[in-house]
Amino acid sequence: MKEVVAGIDIGGTNTVYGLVEKTGNIVAEGRFKTADYPEIDDFVTVLVSSIKSLMETKPGIKLVGIGIGAPNANYHRGTIELAPNLAWKGIVPMAEYVRKKIDVPVAITNDAKAAAIGEMLFGGAKKMKNFIILTLGTGLGSGIVVNGEVLYGHTGFAGELGHTTVVPGGRDCGCGRQGCFETYGSASGLVRTVLNLLSEMREESTLRDIPSSQLTSRQIVEAAAKNDPIALEALDYTAEMIAFGIANAVGFSSPEAIFLFGGLAKAGEVLFAPIREYVNQMVMPIFKGTVKIMPSAISENNAGVLGAAALAWNELK
Amino acid sequence: MKEVVAGIDIGGTNTVYGLVEKTGNIVAEGRFKTADYPEIDDFVTVLVSSIKSLMETKPGIKLVGIGIGAPNANYHRGTIELAPNLAWKGIVPMAEYVRKKIDVPVAITNDAKAAAIGEMLFGGAKKMKNFIILTLGTGLGSGIVVNGEVLYGHTGFAGELGHTTVVPGGRDCGCGRQGCFETYGSASGLVRTVLNLLSEMREESTLRDIPSSQLTSRQIVEAAAKNDPIALEALDYTAEMIAFGIANAVGFSSPEAIFLFGGLAKAGEVLFAPIREYVNQMVMPIFKGTVKIMPSAISENNAGVLGAAALAWNELK
Repeated sequence: MKEVVAGIDIGGTNTVYGLVEKTGNIVAEGRFKTADYPEIDDFVTVLVSSIKSLMETKPGIKLVGIGIGAPNANYHRGTIELAPNLAWKGIVPMAEYVRKKIDVPVAITNDAKAAAIGEMLFGGAKKMKNFIILTLGTGLGSGIVVNGEVLYGHTGFAGELGHTTVVPGGRDCGCGRQGCFETYGSASGLVRTVLNLLSEMREESTLRDIPSSQLTSRQIVEAAAKNDPIALEALDYTAEMIAFGIANAVGFSSPEAIFLFGGLAKAGEVLFAPIREYVNQMVMPIFKGTVKIMPSAISENNAGVLGAAALAWNELK
Repeated sequence: MKEVVAGIDIGGTNTVYGLVEKTGNIVAEGRFKTADYPEIDDFVTVLVSSIKSLMETKPGIKLVGIGIGAPNANYHRGTIELAPNLAWKGIVPMAEYVRKKIDVPVAITNDAKAAAIGEMLFGGAKKMKNFIILTLGTGLGSGIVVNGEVLYGHTGFAGELGHTTVVPGGRDCGCGRQGCFETYGSASGLVRTVLNLLSEMREESTLRDIPSSQLTSRQIVEAAAKNDPIALEALDYTAEMIAFGIANAVGFSSPEAIFLFGGLAKAGEVLFAPIREYVNQMVMPIFKGTVKIMPSAISENNAGVLGAAALAWNELK
């Protein structure tokens, strides 16, 4: 019998699940729309039956554990708590609900922490004991690994770098505060920076022809590739702000590497090169040259499932 | 035979050493002037003979380990590296030098990390797995404990919160950069804040009669106790800056408690009360009420020896 775990990535739009070997090989995969099941009981029933059906398509495999990545998940309590983009309100004891229906160990953690474990088991951090992954999407998530373990802290919510303050009194954040790293360093932060520069700068730019509600980080990166002055300036400023957050994180946990993941990380060297330069300027002398800054080695298509599966395998160690 | 370790606190002025039981009881203590021995060989010879002499005054004890706290100490390498306030230049393999003369396990770490271990073994953090100690003296040191272990990171230099940036482009720091937490949140930061307020404010103040080169944080705290408006404003601003550093640290490692230690921490509630209030305003909602902010439970007189001894006992676990 070939041992697999189920990796489940619960997102606001889709729930993606896969059967994953210890090597990171995805044996089979499936998905359904999360919002089709606004009742948690229905969701769990469909999730478990989907996994069981998937198992039946692959004879000779044995399920040994389940890992779940979800927004606002609390690893210590096995819960999803007050997730704004999910229909289930309050505190959902998701790990317990799933375990009641399949008798294997079930663990849950938030997306960025799952991504960190994925990077450690299957990605670019295989031999690293100290690293950080930043997920640069609509928000800015982070997973911090110290001494080979994900940092959860006293509450289970450690690693909220996206909501550390980089500009006191700065941009309004969805968390109700101002100047959070997320409002500058994420894909949506880049869009906000362009909007600001459209007011500050007088240069021509194709970005002026796009309604602000439709402007995306991808359009900005594409414009930068065509030397659009506002796009270039916005990327440089974003790189500087990401570097600022990284430099302070380096002072805190002195990681061997920072992995960047998600929409904005796809910008490539136009973002990575200035980030590296700014970080080297900003860190204390003793940290210069001690931290690699690189893209995640996990493909974004599989990252959710692989991260959740890595969580499960890591628990079984 | 009663087992003890030697705790050695190497400072720019004095080297203090003591024999310490596992309970934290200091059996005997001694000291000499660090600067009397500018040659490292002489220093080690005197240090070791001092410890042996001290042992002889207490029959029936057995030395099982040595812990050393020193500025710029690297735990991983057992070295003191480029310490600006010590006479020995370059990289000093202190742990190895001492071990050559006394055949017991020798560990070395920097002062603030030793203070963290001291707090964990003998102080207010006895049952805590996640906490941070900030040493608010001339500089601002920090020791971070996560999952019950001191955070060293990839380089051994993790936990440099004093040199994370709180005000980009702000006050010049001894590290060569600007706006470090240390330049606002330490005892010398408080003095700098008063100097700034003397220029900004027009209120009468006894602090105007003290040459700036002689102004101390103690004088400022005393003036605040007499309702001196500049001293009060300076303490409030310092509390806000310390709270800012704490709030960002909470987002990083979600500690159960922050311990404040050193000259400035002696200010008491005039500093602690506003720090607690500002932290509660500044942290993300999920962290509100999750972190205690309190004075170190270790007396400053013994802290150096106890921290170093705690390091030694912790290694023997």
